[in-house]
Amino acid sequence: MTEQKQDETGSAGYVEPGSEFTRDTHYIATRITADGRDGYPVESGRYRLVAARACPWANRAIIVRRLLGLEDVLSMGLCGPTHDERSWTFDLDPGEVDPVLKIPRLQDAYFARFPDYERGITVPAIVDVPTGQVVTNDYPHITLDLSTEWTKYHREGAPELYPEELRDEIDEVAELVFRDVNNGVYRCGFAGSQSAYDSAYDRLFARLDWLEERLTTRRYLVGDTITEADVRLFTTLARFDSVYHGHFKCNRNKLSEMPALWGYARDLFQTPGFGDTIDFVQIKQHYYMVHTDINPTGIVPKGPDLSGWLQPHGREQLGGRPFGTGTPPPPPQSGEEVPAGHGA
Amino acid sequence: MTEQKQDETGSAGYVEPGSEFTRDTHYIATRITADGRDGYPVESGRYRLVAARACPWANRAIIVRRLLGLEDVLSMGLCGPTHDERSWTFDLDPGEVDPVLKIPRLQDAYFARFPDYERGITVPAIVDVPTGQVVTNDYPHITLDLSTEWTKYHREGAPELYPEELRDEIDEVAELVFRDVNNGVYRCGFAGSQSAYDSAYDRLFARLDWLEERLTTRRYLVGDTITEADVRLFTTLARFDSVYHGHFKCNRNKLSEMPALWGYARDLFQTPGFGDTIDFVQIKQHYYMVHTDINPTGIVPKGPDLSGWLQPHGREQLGGRPFGTGTPPPPPQSGEEVPAGHGA
Repeated sequence: MTEQKQDETGSAGYVEPGSEFTRDTHYIATRITADGRDGYPVESGRYRLVAARACPWANRAIIVRRLLGLEDVLSMGLCGPTHDERSWTFDLDPGEVDPVLKIPRLQDAYFARFPDYERGITVPAIVDVPTGQVVTNDYPHITLDLSTEWTKYHREGAPELYPEELRDEIDEVAELVFRDVNNGVYRCGFAGSQSAYDSAYDRLFARLDWLEERLTTRRYLVGDTITEADVRLFTTLARFDSVYHGHFKCNRNKLSEMPALWGYARDLFQTPGFGDTIDFVQIKQHYYMVHTDINPTGIVPKGPDLSGWLQPHGREQLGGRPFGTGTPPPPPQSGEEVPAGHGA
Repeated sequence: MTEQKQDETGSAGYVEPGSEFTRDTHYIATRITADGRDGYPVESGRYRLVAARACPWANRAIIVRRLLGLEDVLSMGLCGPTHDERSWTFDLDPGEVDPVLKIPRLQDAYFARFPDYERGITVPAIVDVPTGQVVTNDYPHITLDLSTEWTKYHREGAPELYPEELRDEIDEVAELVFRDVNNGVYRCGFAGSQSAYDSAYDRLFARLDWLEERLTTRRYLVGDTITEADVRLFTTLARFDSVYHGHFKCNRNKLSEMPALWGYARDLFQTPGFGDTIDFVQIKQHYYMVHTDINPTGIVPKGPDLSGWLQPHGREQLGGRPFGTGTPPPPPQSGEEVPAGHGA
């Protein structure tokens, strides 16, 4: 996802002076389903997930695709961390063009379907490879559909991330986490007034305190295995000390100062499919270089020390089985590894 | 001190793109001495120390004046935290005018002596009250002269902050601390290029590691009592987690993540004359509101949680006597207390 707004002159800004930050939550609602009711049936090899390691919303899809073993069925293109004012770009690829879609900018896939598309060009997006047209960028549905519509292609031993009997609780927790944490950190960082910031900060840390308490006695957010709720919280926690604490002024304390949440985050980080998708270098470059209205110098901090992510977390003693009756995914496929030196 | 540079158009900037931050270290060299050799003899009631609680360089003088019990001999005026582009101002005083000097801006005292004064209008400064003229703003000399030239007015039990036999070692440590820490944090925050930042960050944390090791077995920096070296390090450490960690990107770790340094900082904070001079509200307002080129929104973070400053530090077990054969100062005089809610 990008959080960018464009003013009438075409220049980009994230902070609107005097205002709260309001996220545009209208996405392309088309869905890829088993029955193909929107015209896009689940099919092996037909679609391409376009993501960016920097982006927490896209990171969810990268994790879920890996946990479910969809790599050979749904290919993935990765945009670089520092999109320009118009679009996320494939500047990491040879010739700065996606090797499958043959486009330099993600917006080309959006415009291929909607020539007058006016909203933000966001990741994650799924593109229909034969037509080159974007199908959807509706990130909350993307991960849920990977779990519930793509089942026939799941690997053997894939976890159930959105089990029928836990959906109400997952939805409820995810909604609170979205409002106060996932989006809450942006409301702190892009606040256009002191009072908008103060209120976002209070809500964020009240929710983190609530999570800290919940996770003191439970290994995972809902049930005793990893679910969609954990995926959604994890991608924000992974960015907390590296970006949100300083850049977005979410600084009552570091994540590493909240014992249960920090143990929980490390537990997930060390679980195959989670930490092996995290590129701290791209994450820091994205936020510190793209948001010039809150970091005009574009200088990227060298800290924090990341070695703590690999320390023992001791969360096994709370019980739970990360993959339920299933198994962890194998290591990332060749070509999809986080570059050496970019992880913890 | 202010670190402001003015460009030719008169607008202020702290970051010079492409460059390292270079501090102008030329100050008014006139000294107030016991023998009055520069025309300004030590005298009770004649001079006024102008400081600002926000400023780490001025904070040194506030601490030393209190430790030595010079309050009744050398009065103090306090500027507000958010000076304008021209000067520190007395905006906290009734009518926004210093009640003794009767001026709204510190620059008025500079111009009274040097009508064409072109350098920064900095705190701390000492003003000759009868003439309204600034005598000196040479902050390293100001504190040393309070210790060595104003001895006849020291309170009974005042500590020796610059004892003859330790001067070489104090000077040596202070020089390294100035270069890499006191000024080092500014070199991080005002770096005009990634490489200037990276190099300042490396020097800062190498020096903090060196201090961490030194303070693991020693209660104070030099000798076994508080000295000028401790005062100089303390005013930077007091601002570290609240400002330098995030605002200046000094974020390998928080001070509170370095056990010996954090214990040392708390020990001093809880020593009369140190923590009772620290106004965290003004400190945060100053940096986050004045440096608009690195924090354009002017939003002041609510964090960090400050409660740790008052936690037990356990440093007594290293031995040492804070005041040597002397005694701690009494509580701050009426009218000189840090406002309620502004401390830890």
